[in-house]
Amino acid sequence: MKLAVVQTNPTFGEKSKNIAEALQLMQSTQADLYVLPELFATGYNFATVEEVQHLAEPFRTGVTFKELEQFAHEQRSYVVYGFAEKSNGKLYNSAGIIGHDGTVGLYRKIHLFDREKLFFAPGDKPFQVFDTPHGKVGIMVCFDWYFPESARTLALKGAQLIAHPSNLVLPNCPNSMPTRCLENRVFAATANRIGTENRGVAPLTYIGQSQITSPRGEILHRAPADKPEIAVKDVDLTVTDNKNVTPRNHLLDDRRPEFYA
Amino acid sequence: MKLAVVQTNPTFGEKSKNIAEALQLMQSTQADLYVLPELFATGYNFATVEEVQHLAEPFRTGVTFKELEQFAHEQRSYVVYGFAEKSNGKLYNSAGIIGHDGTVGLYRKIHLFDREKLFFAPGDKPFQVFDTPHGKVGIMVCFDWYFPESARTLALKGAQLIAHPSNLVLPNCPNSMPTRCLENRVFAATANRIGTENRGVAPLTYIGQSQITSPRGEILHRAPADKPEIAVKDVDLTVTDNKNVTPRNHLLDDRRPEFYA
Repeated sequence: MKLAVVQTNPTFGEKSKNIAEALQLMQSTQADLYVLPELFATGYNFATVEEVQHLAEPFRTGVTFKELEQFAHEQRSYVVYGFAEKSNGKLYNSAGIIGHDGTVGLYRKIHLFDREKLFFAPGDKPFQVFDTPHGKVGIMVCFDWYFPESARTLALKGAQLIAHPSNLVLPNCPNSMPTRCLENRVFAATANRIGTENRGVAPLTYIGQSQITSPRGEILHRAPADKPEIAVKDVDLTVTDNKNVTPRNHLLDDRRPEFYA
Repeated sequence: MKLAVVQTNPTFGEKSKNIAEALQLMQSTQADLYVLPELFATGYNFATVEEVQHLAEPFRTGVTFKELEQFAHEQRSYVVYGFAEKSNGKLYNSAGIIGHDGTVGLYRKIHLFDREKLFFAPGDKPFQVFDTPHGKVGIMVCFDWYFPESARTLALKGAQLIAHPSNLVLPNCPNSMPTRCLENRVFAATANRIGTENRGVAPLTYIGQSQITSPRGEILHRAPADKPEIAVKDVDLTVTDNKNVTPRNHLLDDRRPEFYA
């Protein structure tokens, strides 16, 4: 499959512009699955919960969903993207998956980072893996990577690829994803944003370096720190099904949960 | 505390020589805790279980224990080391901790690698953390690193330092230990061996690169791939007690086990 990570530079609050710019990048390159950053349409560095309220949208009926759904159908592709979700009076830092075949799935970020805790409710749905004709796609969002249990849970649920919309501000994720991929023998596609948001309580600078990482821990692509970009890699997700590190060692079957805290 | 990783080049089967060479390195440099490789006294690449039977020893009464106990008392230090353990008719790939204050602890490798499964029984005791005046020391052995649950379990049990006797043949551990240390905010001391053992069913070459890694994921020391060495770093284990990545994010308290598989 052709796997794309889309690195964008959204302007806070300008949803139409941010969606249009992302679509322009995506239309420039054919892929089977596009991974967009966390909160790519709204921006990230909220000052107040009212700002989130104003920019958030319901999943299946919001403008972000509608535009990406149309794109997915036109390109006969899949899209995973982060968005601010409004649902039953609550706000979530969520990610959606939309496929041209009608696949629609939702993930709500389980490990909220820093001030997100002021704005969003923590995810209340399990980590999930979605079937596509290209393979099984699990979703985690940004800071989830820091907790090895996130990727592990997705791998145990059968994920062959972890789609990872992000707005990274700490430096550690790109060099750590090879370990996440090695220990679970999965691909990962980390789509990060760039730029600085001079707002909120303090400016935030995002580190770019969107990355596609192989099950052997190879960095197949790393984007620059400071430029929007779309990168595509041809990957075969079925190679992740062999979890044998040696003929006698299976990465998942060798686990010994009776000894894990 | 002064933390030492001891990188040796044992000769298969020559226990007295291997212990003497390790002690010589250790006597050259004062430290509070010395970490030795896995199976440092016996060698690793067994051909038959009879060879293991012949070289293995009981924990507290074996020659390896006795020699290291004497060293620990003389140097007023601690030693963590890997050894082939014989206990109640079973063989284990074990690690001991011996302290000059009378501390004595045993860990039996929980995740056996490749042909180890032919020779050793899998560990039947929990991951454990041992109190020392310098801080809390958890033990894992070599391939345990590959399973994020190992270091996580030790961190949840309070480990500030993970002592990690190893005989690494795969290339991935040194670059992955920063992730293990970051995600748990602990120090790690990986003591590996060097050399090639032209025996067993196929030769094995060990990658050296013994490493001390900080809770921030910094590589404080990495040994060469091909030379015996002792390296000492001054580390303050109490810095690991602050598990806050941000004022709002605690690496252990933010876990959400209800969503982990």
